[in-house]
Amino acid sequence: MESEAFKQVFLKYQTLINDRLSKIADSRQPQNLYQPIEYVLNSGGKRIRPILLMLSCKALDGDVDASLDAAVAVELLHNFTLVHDDMMDQDDTRRGMPTVHKKWGSDIALLTGDGLVSLAYQSLLRTRSKRIHEISKIFTDGIIELCEGQALDYDFEKRQDVQLDDYLLMIGKKTARLLHICATIGAIIGNGSDSQVQALGNFGNNLGCAFQIQDDLLDITSKQEILGKTHGSDIIRKKQTYLVVYGLTHADVATKHRLLDILENSNNHSARITEIRDMFQHIGSIDAANAAIENYITSARANLDDLPSTPGKGHLLDLLDYVATRQA
Amino acid sequence: MESEAFKQVFLKYQTLINDRLSKIADSRQPQNLYQPIEYVLNSGGKRIRPILLMLSCKALDGDVDASLDAAVAVELLHNFTLVHDDMMDQDDTRRGMPTVHKKWGSDIALLTGDGLVSLAYQSLLRTRSKRIHEISKIFTDGIIELCEGQALDYDFEKRQDVQLDDYLLMIGKKTARLLHICATIGAIIGNGSDSQVQALGNFGNNLGCAFQIQDDLLDITSKQEILGKTHGSDIIRKKQTYLVVYGLTHADVATKHRLLDILENSNNHSARITEIRDMFQHIGSIDAANAAIENYITSARANLDDLPSTPGKGHLLDLLDYVATRQA
Repeated sequence: MESEAFKQVFLKYQTLINDRLSKIADSRQPQNLYQPIEYVLNSGGKRIRPILLMLSCKALDGDVDASLDAAVAVELLHNFTLVHDDMMDQDDTRRGMPTVHKKWGSDIALLTGDGLVSLAYQSLLRTRSKRIHEISKIFTDGIIELCEGQALDYDFEKRQDVQLDDYLLMIGKKTARLLHICATIGAIIGNGSDSQVQALGNFGNNLGCAFQIQDDLLDITSKQEILGKTHGSDIIRKKQTYLVVYGLTHADVATKHRLLDILENSNNHSARITEIRDMFQHIGSIDAANAAIENYITSARANLDDLPSTPGKGHLLDLLDYVATRQA
Repeated sequence: MESEAFKQVFLKYQTLINDRLSKIADSRQPQNLYQPIEYVLNSGGKRIRPILLMLSCKALDGDVDASLDAAVAVELLHNFTLVHDDMMDQDDTRRGMPTVHKKWGSDIALLTGDGLVSLAYQSLLRTRSKRIHEISKIFTDGIIELCEGQALDYDFEKRQDVQLDDYLLMIGKKTARLLHICATIGAIIGNGSDSQVQALGNFGNNLGCAFQIQDDLLDITSKQEILGKTHGSDIIRKKQTYLVVYGLTHADVATKHRLLDILENSNNHSARITEIRDMFQHIGSIDAANAAIENYITSARANLDDLPSTPGKGHLLDLLDYVATRQA
């Protein structure tokens, strides 16, 4: 259970970030570009990535105000990936609202994503830090890995031989890397030593892996009205989630074939989601996913061991709990 | 007619850039991302933008080697725009070869473009310059304008009331801005004074406007086998080119209606391209376009007046001739 102080800081940072995001498109033209950008940025989201960045800065008693531009940048970058990934995944809703390509078409969604990534750099480059060049490189290398992770994810949809190592490589690039970047950049802005920057980066990475496996779980165990996006969309899209990969690599031959058969034919049959969930339960995928999440959380906690005891460090530990227990 | 020395320098720079581009995807994984990136980067192209950057550096007797990373970056950025623009324009061929979305589908083309823009930053950030932060900002602001220009271009396809000022705003962002960036960054790396950086930036901008109007002309006057892309594709896609905008704003009412009628019904009827070309000739669009190109070329030449006489400056003037007289 997170502390009251954490909840206040979380809300305070969330408000700071939302205020900045809500002004990004202000008085910019043309409308057909900035209206969908504004729509995306005002459609909610927990802002976990920018908050992780700011808390990593705060954990080192750094100047949190100086981290806001970079925090806004990682959230813009995250939203770029959402818009383009939703196109590739053909998802109709996001956060309970129509996706950009559903509302404006794929041409505008393409441009919206491109605009968001350049606006992300614009915000990042406003950061007042002597190490801005290093920060820009970390940010850029991260985007390349995001693209690689997305390409792997896409490739895996057509494969049935994906191993857990392949899956972990993919989520390391597609999800965990961005949280690694957030914590690393926050630590650099907070004037952390090399070992502190590395420890916080590792914390972000472990948090990211836990977060993604949790996401895979929630896709099939959460209630749709809480999730805000199409329920079971990973299954419908034939994603190689932790549950699927574990299931296919651990089930006996008969169960594996039954699972493959259901997965292959689960297009839009949301009734089959329950059947698939029961099957994952039976094979042990759900227990294994929960154990993996717990492992990553434990590692993430250990990454902070050598950091000085600051309120910021306490908040990072609370953020771990928040992510581990989230319902959507 | 360009000088022999220019041709040699052009070829030398082109080779340097092509060598670097051909290695960008080397031993990178996954294949489904880097294979199309390699395909795009090895499919030719005149490399005018990076050559402009390097020549702008050379014109100030700067260290041209130090400008190569930035030169590669602007070419990567240009190729990002080509891949995504081809998706929006539904163009099937580019430089005589199938476009990425035609060959691999729109999902992979989307990712290819995203990968290219991040690889562009990676190359840019390798630049050894004390002003790398400023260079990064110029590059980023430029990408935002490219997106805005593309959004305007897209919007104009649905409009019939576009004026020449609107058109000029659009090409200023969509085309000329990137050439402005090239010349500006080259001048900064070449340690130019503020006024020299500005003069070269203006040169790039004027060159870019001439280049785009030339492009509009070539779409309808060039031979398809030279052009390497679908002939008359601007007309088929209902683009507001210089010729169209001039035609619709200068024709008498009857001619305007006939032109609109032909443009509206010119889908894939390449036979009508000849009819449209004759009509542009009759209205005066082609003469006006040639005059506009000449004006921009004259302004670009004047932008260089105050620069010291260096071989690099001479090459920039040759580059102007090269662009003004190109056939594809």
